[in-house]
Amino acid sequence: MKKSLKIRVPGFTFSGIAAGIKQSGDPDLAIIKSAVPCTAAGVFTKNRVKAAPVRLSMRRLARMKQCQAIIVNSGNANACTGNRGAEDARVMTALVARALGIPETLTCVSSTGIIGHPMPIDAITNAIPNAAAALSQASIMDAAEAIMTTDTFPKVSVQKIEIGGLRGIIAGIAKGAGMICPDMATMLCFLFTDVSVAHEALVRALKTSTDISFNRLTVDNDMSTNDTVIVMANGLLRNRPITSTSRHYSTFQNALSKVTSELTQMIAEDGEGATSKIRVEVESARSVKEALKIARAIAGSMLVKTAIYGKDPNWGRIIAAAGRAGACMKEEKTDIRINGVLIAKDGASTGMEKKAGASMGRKETVITVRLKSGRQSATVFTCDLTEEYIRINAHYTT
Amino acid sequence: MKKSLKIRVPGFTFSGIAAGIKQSGDPDLAIIKSAVPCTAAGVFTKNRVKAAPVRLSMRRLARMKQCQAIIVNSGNANACTGNRGAEDARVMTALVARALGIPETLTCVSSTGIIGHPMPIDAITNAIPNAAAALSQASIMDAAEAIMTTDTFPKVSVQKIEIGGLRGIIAGIAKGAGMICPDMATMLCFLFTDVSVAHEALVRALKTSTDISFNRLTVDNDMSTNDTVIVMANGLLRNRPITSTSRHYSTFQNALSKVTSELTQMIAEDGEGATSKIRVEVESARSVKEALKIARAIAGSMLVKTAIYGKDPNWGRIIAAAGRAGACMKEEKTDIRINGVLIAKDGASTGMEKKAGASMGRKETVITVRLKSGRQSATVFTCDLTEEYIRINAHYTT
Repeated sequence: MKKSLKIRVPGFTFSGIAAGIKQSGDPDLAIIKSAVPCTAAGVFTKNRVKAAPVRLSMRRLARMKQCQAIIVNSGNANACTGNRGAEDARVMTALVARALGIPETLTCVSSTGIIGHPMPIDAITNAIPNAAAALSQASIMDAAEAIMTTDTFPKVSVQKIEIGGLRGIIAGIAKGAGMICPDMATMLCFLFTDVSVAHEALVRALKTSTDISFNRLTVDNDMSTNDTVIVMANGLLRNRPITSTSRHYSTFQNALSKVTSELTQMIAEDGEGATSKIRVEVESARSVKEALKIARAIAGSMLVKTAIYGKDPNWGRIIAAAGRAGACMKEEKTDIRINGVLIAKDGASTGMEKKAGASMGRKETVITVRLKSGRQSATVFTCDLTEEYIRINAHYTT
Repeated sequence: MKKSLKIRVPGFTFSGIAAGIKQSGDPDLAIIKSAVPCTAAGVFTKNRVKAAPVRLSMRRLARMKQCQAIIVNSGNANACTGNRGAEDARVMTALVARALGIPETLTCVSSTGIIGHPMPIDAITNAIPNAAAALSQASIMDAAEAIMTTDTFPKVSVQKIEIGGLRGIIAGIAKGAGMICPDMATMLCFLFTDVSVAHEALVRALKTSTDISFNRLTVDNDMSTNDTVIVMANGLLRNRPITSTSRHYSTFQNALSKVTSELTQMIAEDGEGATSKIRVEVESARSVKEALKIARAIAGSMLVKTAIYGKDPNWGRIIAAAGRAGACMKEEKTDIRINGVLIAKDGASTGMEKKAGASMGRKETVITVRLKSGRQSATVFTCDLTEEYIRINAHYTT
């Protein structure tokens, strides 16, 4: 994490301060700013209940296709807050725009925290000038800290990228989805690059990267009211703008996916109360869709997650979760590995429970399910389920 | 529960003994027998991975439409046990049939417990004569105890029924689905009546009763490898057999549903580690299907369940779960009550958090969501999620 302190993305400045939204006094307000307007794209929650800042940022990005600054607060989600919430979100962007001397329409907003409580807008109003004054190229870690809720560490990822001899950079910060197969714990991610990318290419690259990273972390329907991923490309690298047909597109796509995948791993590692990341690999399925269904059912199973926590190689729970996924699978053809140990072959025990159990308790547990019915595979990430998760979530508003 | 001790269903005898399948030495083998062959129907798990006893009992009930005895064991699910498991299930029915002097084809079998371990068939073989010898009309509670796994109390329900001046009885025993919105903790239920019912009517009545009781307790896809509900009607009441068009059908249907609903409530109350049952009512939806989708999303939300445990009236989690259910709902029209306290009106807080919080911590928590978009409603049952659930499930095979 130390190296993140040195991350600079040309043209981007960051700040993260304590505005007093969180009772703890921890940092809770971040600003991300580019020196020039950026081509920008976003991916947002599909929940029918969308927080006010989500609705505002969606609208602005759709209309402007550009963005120059984002204000993000933690501690309050500004969700289910009615007309007042919509006004508060707008006011936040207006004040930031004024403080930064940029158009309000190029300003986005994200919020995360408790739902259904009005924003402490006065605290935010008072803090915005300080947050604007604190902007600096070196402060990416401050911003990453200010967007945290129950995260235990800030999440920053960076990739270098070479485009036709020019050396660019893609960086991102994220906050965790609390628990990983959750209903609604908010996931936020902001990505910044100095590479010049055409809008259509940026939209496509972001969608692809999100699909194979954040969307493999949680079932689609389980999105929160506030989930947001925004990418900003300010073009200061002065490369010829990348389009989705240009030969550098895949270079950009791969680098972006690497950043989102790294952040995904960090979120899984930092699941609320988690002691182990879990990687669920489903192999030799008839289609990616079926592989994903089964991987998600396993990753979403409370009984599988608690078994991993108990270092219990309970493959019965794994195969039963696979069986109820609504995808094609044959019990008598299914092999299951835990951390590489073949614990069930053709749907029956191999007697290797002890060896598999001994392999557990690591920072990452790998469950591999081989269906032997096709050539497609998919991987989904989650984490174990512990008493600590219950403790954290049983007392969140109070 | 005391009154259950007096339950007698004419013609039915029961036993429950300790066969040594459970290491604890607790009762783990039950026999249910009718003096005469019964009309019988069953509802089974839809999981693609079906335990051997499920496959055998499904086949026999489909072919014979009759059943005279059921052998049930707890401690081992006989699931994912390959050819040996299929043979073990068959042997269990053969031995019971021989001990009781009835046809093997009229004998069903159910198992619940750990998956993927071979049955301790010798222990069962040795115990069957004892279980047969212990059969008595008064032992229904013994059978209810012997089918328990992590249940903390035996579950028995009984309803009197009058058919054309004749006084019949419907009784049932069940074991819990561990946690209530679980992946696969097994639910077993056996129902017995002296009423004479035609096979088609019995099939229909059982399906209807299951749909509005057990199937409101858990999402369909979340069934275990072993879930089983079997009803046996021995006809000793000597009423004219009830068909689905006869005027007594609804009397029978209602009484059967009352038994399954009572057992459903007991299972919810006895959810693993639960401190409170939760009743989720969704009202004024456009269709029952949409109401059910939303009720199930709320009842399945780990964040809602942990909030209830924390006596936290966190309606934000409730509305967010509703929003991701994939059903039609408008945030700005949604009202939410907790234990009757209107905590959100038209999607925004009413400021009644304190009053709602004070109402929590009861044996049952009622969440009522009013969508104001139609005239249909649905209710789903679940329970809260506690550290104890994690403790129970983190160390189940070991």
